[in-house]
Amino acid sequence: MVCTVHFHERPELNNPVLIEGLPGIGFVANIATLHLIQELKAKLFAELHSSAFQDFAITAEQGKTNVPMNEFYYYKGQSGERDLILLYGNTQALTTMGQYELCGRVLDVAEEFRCKYIITLGGLRREEKIINPKLYCAAADKEALKDALNMGAEILGGQIFGVAGLLVALGKLRGFKGFCLLAETAGFHPDVRAAHLTLKPICEMLCLNVNLSRLDVAAEATRKILESFGLLEAPMNERRKEESEFRWFV
Amino acid sequence: MVCTVHFHERPELNNPVLIEGLPGIGFVANIATLHLIQELKAKLFAELHSSAFQDFAITAEQGKTNVPMNEFYYYKGQSGERDLILLYGNTQALTTMGQYELCGRVLDVAEEFRCKYIITLGGLRREEKIINPKLYCAAADKEALKDALNMGAEILGGQIFGVAGLLVALGKLRGFKGFCLLAETAGFHPDVRAAHLTLKPICEMLCLNVNLSRLDVAAEATRKILESFGLLEAPMNERRKEESEFRWFV
Amino acid sequence: MVCTVHFHERPELNNPVLIEGLPGIGFVANIATLHLIQELKAKLFAELHSSAFQDFAITAEQGKTNVPMNEFYYYKGQSGERDLILLYGNTQALTTMGQYELCGRVLDVAEEFRCKYIITLGGLRREEKIINPKLYCAAADKEALKDALNMGAEILGGQIFGVAGLLVALGKLRGFKGFCLLAETAGFHPDVRAAHLTLKPICEMLCLNVNLSRLDVAAEATRKILESFGLLEAPMNERRKEESEFRWFV
Amino acid sequence: MVCTVHFHERPELNNPVLIEGLPGIGFVANIATLHLIQELKAKLFAELHSSAFQDFAITAEQGKTNVPMNEFYYYKGQSGERDLILLYGNTQALTTMGQYELCGRVLDVAEEFRCKYIITLGGLRREEKIINPKLYCAAADKEALKDALNMGAEILGGQIFGVAGLLVALGKLRGFKGFCLLAETAGFHPDVRAAHLTLKPICEMLCLNVNLSRLDVAAEATRKILESFGLLEAPMNERRKEESEFRWFV
Repeated sequence: MVCTVHFHERPELNNPVLIEGLPGIGFVANIATLHLIQELKAKLFAELHSSAFQDFAITAEQGKTNVPMNEFYYYKGQSGERDLILLYGNTQALTTMGQYELCGRVLDVAEEFRCKYIITLGGLRREEKIINPKLYCAAADKEALKDALNMGAEILGGQIFGVAGLLVALGKLRGFKGFCLLAETAGFHPDVRAAHLTLKPICEMLCLNVNLSRLDVAAEATRKILESFGLLEAPMNERRKEESEFRWFV
Repeated sequence: MVCTVHFHERPELNNPVLIEGLPGIGFVANIATLHLIQELKAKLFAELHSSAFQDFAITAEQGKTNVPMNEFYYYKGQSGERDLILLYGNTQALTTMGQYELCGRVLDVAEEFRCKYIITLGGLRREEKIINPKLYCAAADKEALKDALNMGAEILGGQIFGVAGLLVALGKLRGFKGFCLLAETAGFHPDVRAAHLTLKPICEMLCLNVNLSRLDVAAEATRKILESFGLLEAPMNERRKEESEFRWFV
Repeated sequence: MVCTVHFHERPELNNPVLIEGLPGIGFVANIATLHLIQELKAKLFAELHSSAFQDFAITAEQGKTNVPMNEFYYYKGQSGERDLILLYGNTQALTTMGQYELCGRVLDVAEEFRCKYIITLGGLRREEKIINPKLYCAAADKEALKDALNMGAEILGGQIFGVAGLLVALGKLRGFKGFCLLAETAGFHPDVRAAHLTLKPICEMLCLNVNLSRLDVAAEATRKILESFGLLEAPMNERRKEESEFRWFV
Repeated sequence: MVCTVHFHERPELNNPVLIEGLPGIGFVANIATLHLIQELKAKLFAELHSSAFQDFAITAEQGKTNVPMNEFYYYKGQSGERDLILLYGNTQALTTMGQYELCGRVLDVAEEFRCKYIITLGGLRREEKIINPKLYCAAADKEALKDALNMGAEILGGQIFGVAGLLVALGKLRGFKGFCLLAETAGFHPDVRAAHLTLKPICEMLCLNVNLSRLDVAAEATRKILESFGLLEAPMNERRKEESEFRWFV
């Protein structure tokens, strides 16, 4: 397994918080992070490629090709805002081992920029129709748990699949603080409401001055990326039988 | 595949016996070892993490997150009791290669503390209802086989899946003595009776002064851990079709 | 995973173009490249073997055995023709990781001979009957995209599976220019028409003086190789259920 | 993947032939090689273990445990007999990559003892009832092909799965001569007749003075080993659905 990070720049950051925004249930983290990148004009400083990503190319706008990848953006906070490292991407790793390696590399990058606090976002899939989606949380430590509970989140029981769970739990082993914040969602399509639900308290906690009214733009962009991955044509339940490699997309 | 051991302490042990207590059929080893840890107040001295464990986080009591892991505890025997290394955990590795690597690391730790004798425990799944469960054994060498036969165990024919079998057989290649002791069980739920059946003669053999009347406490704790892994909600046969990664849980 | 290249010769080439010709949908690239090798009398200069290829031997004419492999041929252009590196083979890698490693090695070879431009060919599977198959393209850069659009290809949306997509997209990360050219095809059998459709504009672009009237000879040879792989006996849809390792053969 | 060879002895051999005898279709190679080992009193000189073998222990006679393994035996020929290296074992590797690595290690051992000729044996599964089973062959080179054709074998078309094919084809890449000899068989149970059919001409070619009348003893021993692997209880077709790891057992 090979997972490499290529740096464009090595920014000076002041006690940054890492926000994870990879695709997952409801694309909650994906939408929220893309919105932060766009609204804050966060700057791309590193790209991550893994041989545990899909072995296909994705055609982008205007006939360009890309491989699946993860990207690191940074934002230097202004007037009291917290500095950020934003992990954005169009995929998670396809294998268990690949997920561990991916999280390891992300933590390496976080450490290099003296980040000590990790926030992962995600959706919590519910079969039934959700009228008033709730927030759930799990944390690496007491302090971060308190931060999450202060957002009105309830304590989650069970497993947290994929990078959202693994990054906080593996980070804990390496001394990071942080929490995972999940919003209830139907799960398969980009869920703007769930993204809003997670992003609002995060912005408050980090004193980020972000307008959330344009979240649907990020959701629409996410929808297009998913289409280029061929993920929105068929109901997900059916697809999953065929494409077992999308294991992280539970 | 990466499998690493992180030491908290390097205890001085006198000819310790390693007892394996990872989850498996009937959670026999899991319950028995957790009971030993609790009753003997065994001390955690090392943690093992593997990229062949599940790629999710588990939420524990009070909102904390953990990754799947294996732990090493030690007990310094008193008044004639044997020194122990107890291998406890909430998972085995998900891949064949991961299981070999896991056993290799466990044997490395055993060697470092001059352990020369390995006992693995487990359940032997029976379809029919079991009135009087029997003990079965297999061993790395004649001396250990005699030890196991002295417990009233019968010689087992067939395969021993997972770490219970592999650790004894791979240990044999590296000069360890030892045996595997299996109790008949229905298999899917924590089986206190089977755990008692294996643990009782082990305690006698190792002169361990342990009260077995509270074994159900360890079984209940095991049950809770399983719930946090989502393993107890559906009958295991059905689950196995979906979750082929739980291959070691045969 | 081990992927090794064994060189027979290290030719001096002048700004060569790499043309990828591994098996895939409609065997378009496979037929086209075999034809170029035969017509141009291109010379074998390196062989590539991977432990991610199939673990069987293939019997060839006259009782010989071969393992699955990829081969590199070169052609030194005459009177204005472009120098070529031709990648030909009877398989792609069976795993995602193997595909990444394979593409990495191919790019290593391309770099060593100062190749800066990669052309991959392929088929675009259509369920319905195709009367007038069209060409589609995706590119690493604007210049190459223009080259492909000049051939009458339309811009492709979606994913490009296997080496055809991955080689261009990973090449882009390492500074290669190039494009992927796909012809519509029914997909399962060697498709001479689709191969002709891609090869004609490629020959024009590279000023290659190649007679395309004998393309059916290359298609027939490809058909025989497929038979030796056991790939033509049953409809592919049925086979895929059984032989999931032929993942790249979508 | 880790594949290691442990040597008990490093015999002096004179231009030995390697005969491969791992389990496969009809257990032809397995029976034939075990018979040679027993009749010639061949001596064990090395053991091979791989993390791509099954992750279970096998209980042997008298309660002992073993891991799956491959063994190397040697025989120093007397009065004109050829020196032999015999590869015997109770499994092949479970993964493609593991098979490549296994063959690589076997070829390393063969090279170390200056072996230049490899014979692999196997069964060729036929659906229909076989009255007069025939021999088929494929070879690394012309000379070896001639040797095999002289035995009355016909040239095989198609693939040769597993170590039987891979060892000859990968050996060819490293300069070994040799052939693969397959006898028609029904496939699932140890087939004494097919083993006899392959072994007889091999003994003649190598001037081996071996009584083939006791081949059924080796077949019976093979049957017992299979039972300890749990392979003979259910019809193989059914088992294969459940136990996809026995991929090499096609």
